[in-house]
Amino acid sequence: MTDMQGLRVMGIDPGLTRCGLSVVQAGHGRAVLPVAVGVVRTPHEIPLQERLLRLSVAVEEWMDDYSPEVVAIERVFERGNVSTVMNTAHAVGVLMLSAARRGIPVHQYTPSEAKKALTGNGRADKKQMTSMVTRILGLSEPPRPADAADALALAVCHCWRAPFIARTEHLAELSGRQNTRDLRSGQQ
Amino acid sequence: MTDMQGLRVMGIDPGLTRCGLSVVQAGHGRAVLPVAVGVVRTPHEIPLQERLLRLSVAVEEWMDDYSPEVVAIERVFERGNVSTVMNTAHAVGVLMLSAARRGIPVHQYTPSEAKKALTGNGRADKKQMTSMVTRILGLSEPPRPADAADALALAVCHCWRAPFIARTEHLAELSGRQNTRDLRSGQQ
Repeated sequence: MTDMQGLRVMGIDPGLTRCGLSVVQAGHGRAVLPVAVGVVRTPHEIPLQERLLRLSVAVEEWMDDYSPEVVAIERVFERGNVSTVMNTAHAVGVLMLSAARRGIPVHQYTPSEAKKALTGNGRADKKQMTSMVTRILGLSEPPRPADAADALALAVCHCWRAPFIARTEHLAELSGRQNTRDLRSGQQ
Repeated sequence: MTDMQGLRVMGIDPGLTRCGLSVVQAGHGRAVLPVAVGVVRTPHEIPLQERLLRLSVAVEEWMDDYSPEVVAIERVFERGNVSTVMNTAHAVGVLMLSAARRGIPVHQYTPSEAKKALTGNGRADKKQMTSMVTRILGLSEPPRPADAADALALAVCHCWRAPFIARTEHLAELSGRQNTRDLRSGQQ
């Protein structure tokens, strides 16, 4: 399995009212070290495009300060309040753009993928997740608010999933080469 | 009524596979002059964040080339294919950010608002809309593809709605002043 030791991951729980941001560093084996965590808020009284600009400026500052090598962000689903879902989806666009402008790869995880990775249960509740994040990262107290804890959970999720993703991509590449050879021999 | 003559409007039919872009200029009365129209495409084979980056670069080039004073963009709804809706919502975030970075105000219109403004019928079909856009702008042939026609329709919609928006904002401001006076006299 590919060793991810030292990999610096930014976890993002996307949102416009509150956006959770975190940075962690993969340690040896399943160890993960906390680097930073915080929440960016934008006021709902200002126009939508201004809120997106403020979020963009904030996340780019984080990227400049912590130089993450990869971004793990929660995938948005169509559930709950329509206007909130759309605002979150607009925010995701802006957050992904910030990563793309720096050439940082982005991985999306569903809430249940993150829950499964951290607790083994895709339906774990917020309390279980916060408790696991606190334990894994060796924090002295649970991260607050929930958006901060979620951002850390996504980053930890990526640290643990990354070796498998890398192996799958490697196998896909090998299989691609194999196909290329097969086609060539077929043509000869 | 506020005169909008000379106002340069960018109309955007947002999308990631195809994004319609247009620029028009308000003339005297209800006259609207076409300036530019086009479609930006991003390939679905590349990662989502790369597609958003390409869209962002393209729309910023348009903004630099045509210096619009206001952007009119279609509001995204949760209908149709979930993944397409989400991609479009991500694209809207990126497009709005481009406007915000240049201090350009953004107005969102629903498809039925644009249809009502152009044809008087909120349920007008694509053919009716294209026909109206072609006539209003005095084009020698109907704009193609549909995304280009929709982008022009949104820009025309804003040219015609802008005087009313300006008047409403002016009245709201006056009414705000009135309220302030009322509160003060009540406190004395």
